[in-house]
Amino acid sequence: MSIQKPKGTQDLLPGEIEKWHYIEAKARELCQRFNFGEIRTPMFEHTELFQRGVGETTDIVEKEMYTFLDKGDRSISLRPEGTAGVVRSYVENKLYGEPDVSKLYYIGPMFRYEQPQAGRYRQFHQFGIEAFGSVDPSLDAEVIALGYTFYKELGLKDVTVEINSVGNSAVRAVYREKIQQFFAPVKDKLCKDCQSRYDRNPMRILDCKVDQKYGEGAPTILEYLDEECQTHFQAVQEYLTAMEIPFRINPRLVRGLDYYTHTAFEYKAAGIGAIDTIGGGGRYNGLVGQIGGTDQPGVGFGLGMERILLVLQAQGVDIPTAKPLDVYLIGLGEAAERECVKLLQNVRLAGLSAEKDYLGRKIKAKMKSADRYNAAYVAILGEDELAKGEITLKTMATGEQETLALADLVQTLRERTGQV
Amino acid sequence: MSIQKPKGTQDLLPGEIEKWHYIEAKARELCQRFNFGEIRTPMFEHTELFQRGVGETTDIVEKEMYTFLDKGDRSISLRPEGTAGVVRSYVENKLYGEPDVSKLYYIGPMFRYEQPQAGRYRQFHQFGIEAFGSVDPSLDAEVIALGYTFYKELGLKDVTVEINSVGNSAVRAVYREKIQQFFAPVKDKLCKDCQSRYDRNPMRILDCKVDQKYGEGAPTILEYLDEECQTHFQAVQEYLTAMEIPFRINPRLVRGLDYYTHTAFEYKAAGIGAIDTIGGGGRYNGLVGQIGGTDQPGVGFGLGMERILLVLQAQGVDIPTAKPLDVYLIGLGEAAERECVKLLQNVRLAGLSAEKDYLGRKIKAKMKSADRYNAAYVAILGEDELAKGEITLKTMATGEQETLALADLVQTLRERTGQV
Repeated sequence: MSIQKPKGTQDLLPGEIEKWHYIEAKARELCQRFNFGEIRTPMFEHTELFQRGVGETTDIVEKEMYTFLDKGDRSISLRPEGTAGVVRSYVENKLYGEPDVSKLYYIGPMFRYEQPQAGRYRQFHQFGIEAFGSVDPSLDAEVIALGYTFYKELGLKDVTVEINSVGNSAVRAVYREKIQQFFAPVKDKLCKDCQSRYDRNPMRILDCKVDQKYGEGAPTILEYLDEECQTHFQAVQEYLTAMEIPFRINPRLVRGLDYYTHTAFEYKAAGIGAIDTIGGGGRYNGLVGQIGGTDQPGVGFGLGMERILLVLQAQGVDIPTAKPLDVYLIGLGEAAERECVKLLQNVRLAGLSAEKDYLGRKIKAKMKSADRYNAAYVAILGEDELAKGEITLKTMATGEQETLALADLVQTLRERTGQV
Repeated sequence: MSIQKPKGTQDLLPGEIEKWHYIEAKARELCQRFNFGEIRTPMFEHTELFQRGVGETTDIVEKEMYTFLDKGDRSISLRPEGTAGVVRSYVENKLYGEPDVSKLYYIGPMFRYEQPQAGRYRQFHQFGIEAFGSVDPSLDAEVIALGYTFYKELGLKDVTVEINSVGNSAVRAVYREKIQQFFAPVKDKLCKDCQSRYDRNPMRILDCKVDQKYGEGAPTILEYLDEECQTHFQAVQEYLTAMEIPFRINPRLVRGLDYYTHTAFEYKAAGIGAIDTIGGGGRYNGLVGQIGGTDQPGVGFGLGMERILLVLQAQGVDIPTAKPLDVYLIGLGEAAERECVKLLQNVRLAGLSAEKDYLGRKIKAKMKSADRYNAAYVAILGEDELAKGEITLKTMATGEQETLALADLVQTLRERTGQV
C-alpha cells in the first residue's frame, strides 16, 4: 500500500506553486520598500518559549502544539506561530543593541494540531513582520499600512482594516474587573472554556463564538483608556488617515493572544464567508521582557498564506501562471538527438528556458509536448540538417519556419527572446 | 533567564540572509531554464515513509530522525532528506499519469539529530531536484549538468564531478558476494557498524571512514557491470562530454543510501578541508515502486545549502549584500514629522525603498541612520519648508542639495532611481 501525506498537510505542486511564488515575491518586494529585512528562525523551539511567549493558557499551547522530546530529552515544539521565535532571536542575537529599530519579516510554515477544514491545515504558512525598539505610533500605522498595501497590490478587493486599542496593563486591570462584573450574572451559563477564561482572562470571552449572545452590551475597553493610551490610539488613527488607509474602529476586537498592548488590528476580506479575518496583529510592549530579554516594545502582524489564496480564488483575481518555455528542441534520429543534448545545455547556459524529449517519442508526440510547455520556439534537427550544419526553427505563435546555421541557433534565440 | 535556540539550529538574520537569497534565486532561475518546477512537501511525513524510502538500516533512520507520536498517535518524523517526500507526493498525486516526465525541484529545511559541527546543523537546508519517468541517460547527464552549472554560476571555483555506476540489482547481487569475499578475512577487524554492514549491505564498507585501510584493493563494481549498465554508463559519460561538464570516474563512489541504481555522482569543492563533498545524487529506478507506487524510474540530487555557503566563504566569492535604501526621510519638528509619514507611504507606493526615524532622534542621529542604510537620497523637511510646500533633497553620493516642490518629490525620486 502506498503512503499518504500526513493528515492536514498539503503538497504544493507546479501549477499551484506559481501562486505562492506570486504572493511571496510581493511580500519580499514590499518588505524591501518598507525597509524590513528577512529573518529565518528554526522550525522548532524549546517548548518553554511558546509557554512564555504565546501563553500557557492559550488554546494554541494547551491543545494544538506538536510537542515532543528530542533524543536529548529536551521538550521541543514545532512553532505554532511566528512571533515568539522572532522575539527569541531578537533577544538572543542582541539586536536591541543596534542603533536603529529592528524591522524584520518572515515567511514560512507553522504547525498546529487542529481539525483540518477548507483553508485550515496542520502545516500552514504565514507571512509576518515584527518591528522592535520604538513606541512611536507611526510604526503601528506603518505595520498596518504594509499589510493593507500587500493585500491591495496582490489584487484583493474589499479588504477592510479594523483597529482597536487594548490599552496598557493598568487599563486592562481596570477593564478586567468591569468585564468580570458584567459577565458575573451569566457566568454559569457560559461555555466551559469561558468559565475558565472568566478568572484567567475575561476579555477573551468577547472573542468566543459560542457565548457571543452574552457579550452584547458589554463595556468596551475604549471607555477605560487612560491618557497615554488615548493619545497613542489617536495618533495611530491620524497616521492611517494621512496614509489614506481606510479603517474602522472595532471596540470588541481583542485578538486571541495575551501579549497585545495598545494597538490591535485585523484585516477582513469579502467573499470567503463568515470567518472573514485574513490577518491581524498589534503592538506588544511586554512580550520581549516576558520572553526573557531586555524590555523592548514591539509591533507586528501575521497573515495566513492559505487564507490569501482562498480570497484570491474566491474573488477571481488573475494570478500569473507558469512562464512559457523559450524553446523545445527536437532531434530526429540518434545522432541528431545526441546533438540536441549539447544544444540544450548551450541554450540554457545562454539564459533561456529549454526542454527536449526524454521518452524516445516520435516527432508528433514531441510537438505535442512542446505545446503543453507553451514553447515560444521549436528547433528541429534532422539527420540531413545535422550533416549540413543547419537547423529548422519554428515560431509557434505564427507557425513560420526558417532554416538557420546550427552555429547561429543560440545567438538567434537569445536575440528573439531578449536575452542579450 | 532568556531562552536560547535549540541546539544545532541557527537564526538567519539580515546581513547573512542576503547570501541565502542569492543562492536560492540562482537555484530557482536555473531550474526554470532547465524546466524543473518547484514542489513543496510537508516538513514531516509518516515515519514509515522514511523507513521504506531511505532504508530502515541506514544511520539516518536508525539514529538521526526526529520521530514522535502526534496527538492522534501516528508516528511522524521531521523529514531527514528531500527525496522520499517528493517520491511520495509524485505517487500520491499520480504525476506518473502525465504525458511528460516530471521534473521537480525543492529548497527547504531538513532535520537530523547529529552532533553539530562547523557547517553541520540539526536543521539544515537542501536544494534538490528529482526527475521521474525516464531511463534516458541524457536525463542523468542533465541532472549532473544542472548541479555543476549551479555551482559554477554561483561563482564557486574548482568544483569537480565524480561519477560511478552502481549497477542494477542483478549486478549488485554479484558484486555483493565479491565484496563479502574480499572483506571476509578482515571481517572481525572491521568497526562495529561495518560488521553489521557486512551482511546487510557490504558495499557500504567502502564508504566507511574508519575501515578505509581494509578497503584498499577491493574489487570495484565497474568490473561486474552487465551490458545494459555499461551502455547506460557509457552514454552518460558521452553526454557529459558533449555538454562540456568535466568529470572523473570514481569506482569506489557508492553514496550513503540504498536506493541508487546505475549512475551515482558527487560534487567536490576545493578549500573546505577533508570533507569536500558538497552535494550528490544518482539514479534510483527502484525507489518509486518501493515507496508503494507504480514502478517509475527517477534520478536526482541533493545539495547542502550550508556547505555551499562554507565554500563561497572559504573561496572568498563576492556575494551581493543588502540593497541600499532609495531614500531616507527626515522631518524637523512635529508637523514635518507627521507629513513625513504620509510622504513615506507615497514614496513606497511608487516602488521605492524608504525609511524614516522612529526614535525621536535629532537631525544628526537621523543622518547617521541614513548612512547606515546606505541611502542614495535624503529628503529633509523643515517647518519653514513645509509651510512653503518645499523639501530639500540631498544626493548622498555627491553631497549636492536642492530644493523641490513637496508635490514633486515622489516623481523626482522615481525618475532618479529609474522607477518609472
